[in-house]
Amino acid sequence: MKLNIAVLPGDGIGPEVTKQSIKVLKAIAQEFDHTFRFKEAPVGAIAIDKTGESLPEKTLDLCKSTDAILFGAIGDPKYDNNPSAKVRPEQGLLKLRKELGLFANIRPVKAYNNLLSKSPLKREIIKGTDISIYRELTGGIYFGKKELSEDKNTASDLCEYSRFEIERITHLAFKAARTRKNKVTLVDKANVLESSRLWRRVVTEVSKNYTDVKLDFLFVDNAAMQMILNPKQFDVILTENMFGDIISDEASVIGGSIGLLASASVGEKYAMFEPIHGSYPQATNLGIANPIASILSAAMLLDHFELFEEAELIREGVEISLKLNITTPDLNTKYDHISTSKVGDFIEDFI
Amino acid sequence: MKLNIAVLPGDGIGPEVTKQSIKVLKAIAQEFDHTFRFKEAPVGAIAIDKTGESLPEKTLDLCKSTDAILFGAIGDPKYDNNPSAKVRPEQGLLKLRKELGLFANIRPVKAYNNLLSKSPLKREIIKGTDISIYRELTGGIYFGKKELSEDKNTASDLCEYSRFEIERITHLAFKAARTRKNKVTLVDKANVLESSRLWRRVVTEVSKNYTDVKLDFLFVDNAAMQMILNPKQFDVILTENMFGDIISDEASVIGGSIGLLASASVGEKYAMFEPIHGSYPQATNLGIANPIASILSAAMLLDHFELFEEAELIREGVEISLKLNITTPDLNTKYDHISTSKVGDFIEDFI
Ligand SMILES: CC(C)[C@H](C(=O)O)[C@@H](O)C(=O)O
Ligand SMILES: CC(C)[C@H](C(=O)O)[C@@H](O)C(=O)O
Repeated sequence: MKLNIAVLPGDGIGPEVTKQSIKVLKAIAQEFDHTFRFKEAPVGAIAIDKTGESLPEKTLDLCKSTDAILFGAIGDPKYDNNPSAKVRPEQGLLKLRKELGLFANIRPVKAYNNLLSKSPLKREIIKGTDISIYRELTGGIYFGKKELSEDKNTASDLCEYSRFEIERITHLAFKAARTRKNKVTLVDKANVLESSRLWRRVVTEVSKNYTDVKLDFLFVDNAAMQMILNPKQFDVILTENMFGDIISDEASVIGGSIGLLASASVGEKYAMFEPIHGSYPQATNLGIANPIASILSAAMLLDHFELFEEAELIREGVEISLKLNITTPDLNTKYDHISTSKVGDFIEDFI
Repeated sequence: MKLNIAVLPGDGIGPEVTKQSIKVLKAIAQEFDHTFRFKEAPVGAIAIDKTGESLPEKTLDLCKSTDAILFGAIGDPKYDNNPSAKVRPEQGLLKLRKELGLFANIRPVKAYNNLLSKSPLKREIIKGTDISIYRELTGGIYFGKKELSEDKNTASDLCEYSRFEIERITHLAFKAARTRKNKVTLVDKANVLESSRLWRRVVTEVSKNYTDVKLDFLFVDNAAMQMILNPKQFDVILTENMFGDIISDEASVIGGSIGLLASASVGEKYAMFEPIHGSYPQATNLGIANPIASILSAAMLLDHFELFEEAELIREGVEISLKLNITTPDLNTKYDHISTSKVGDFIEDFI
């Protein structure tokens, strides 16, 4: 297979972890006789510094002309506490999602058996957890009208959803449930929000096409509790943009390391793959950033093109590296100095 | 002291737990020679069934004519999955908050030493946790304009905040921090929301009046992670309405039982006290509902009127009941049949 892949390393540890997944994808290409072509472009704070824009036109063009996008991470503290900054790294990511129509963010959360002890949660609570979160990614309060009054004393954000936006991701979630444990939990706040009541109505309607899948409802506040009390109760979680942001980050803690979690953002035409973790600026260039989330996002990329065997091989490599303690310091209690690139090398060699 | 207290037991287990706190408050009145007068009124699903309204005019009038309100819980499953219901129990609670101007919801979260093992989190993660959450309660997306398009295919909710709304709760949070560990963490989503950027700006300004208090910022998705990874890092958490709903429910899991957590909702003129847990309909009238959250909300009521000694005595009673295993089945591993009212009796006797 021939694939053109846009690489957007972004800020902080983004570049160093992305380098490892490219390494791994190149090994896959060689082993399975594929042709993967990589083209890099800037996004985020690094793009602002270079061009004044967090998502330069050229970067967007590149993304639109390739088959898939491998994304690193963005964000820089120098913009975080500056509420009046006109340009912010995050805008690049949001614009990318919107322009490419990446309406569904898919985040698998799994408790790896050999990492159970790393979790802040008790072993018996998390063992066996296997959740797939479907977060709507191009609607809701993220993209609704924003207003700041002229005197700067009132500000607002509009959370808006249409039937169409809800339907398309709901179908994806139910289809996914069919390949899993046949259960979808809709997380909303239908006792307060009009938009949540629309979600509940539309999802209920769509669910009639999937009579083999059970549909549950959970208010977001209760979901935030249930995620810690009993994460095993969940199979597929379906939710709107902001709730998905919060609940999926909360869930990311279960497995013991956010450094292991990958995500796919998909739409009708494009697909982007990225680790869940942020740019983690304090760790930049220290060789301590865990590349596994990025490497697993490369595996999700392969899945997307139905290269299942290839993806599986990457996952095997990851499992073995975990088993053998070939991991960065965040996970490693045994060896001190296994660096980001050493982990990448190991999985490359394995392949 | 003479206090007129409105009692709004509400739905589900609300009535039975509220009965215990009244019992306890009566014991306090007798012991300390106070006069507490209680008047009951319906709210929630029970009020809808009786009057067609979740907050009948009479109930609101009673609340406005008393010194404080003791609230039980509201919510009934028969309304939850009916997105087109015109009247919903929750509206009563929201209207009450709005009409009484209860702009600050204060939720203490504490890990009790003799309950550490009950938590889904590991002992070393939670031991020593002592957080006070200040959630804005009468603004934001809860009360912003809601719209449903005529064809019912688009719905929206507006999240709006004004400087004034942010300032008043910010002052409360900083004053509280001064009596604690001098740290306030603002939880927001300033990298995406205009309203969050206003929060960040106003809170930063207000903080200049409290140079002895340290101010931190955390994005809500990160806060949802940090709450599990390391809850001890928090002292006072300050946040807007919806984020407060989610984060405080998440935090409620730390202590091992939501059945222990009380909250105060305060404004310029009125104050209301309630357990954090919901109406828990499945447990209604089984005698298994844990009354401690309600009893501790009565203690918060006494604190509010500076009856500190009295409040302390209730808390002591609670601690001893926990130590002696005089607790309902949710907490009790030793004895099977200690009922809601037996726990109330024990604390009453203790006083
Ligand atoms: C960086 C930020 C805008 C983004 C979001 O909130 O969507 C991030 O938290 C994520 O979840 O991908
Ligand atoms: C019942 C519901 C409207 C309410 C809220 O979301 O505020 C509840 O969850 C709470 O936190 O008091």
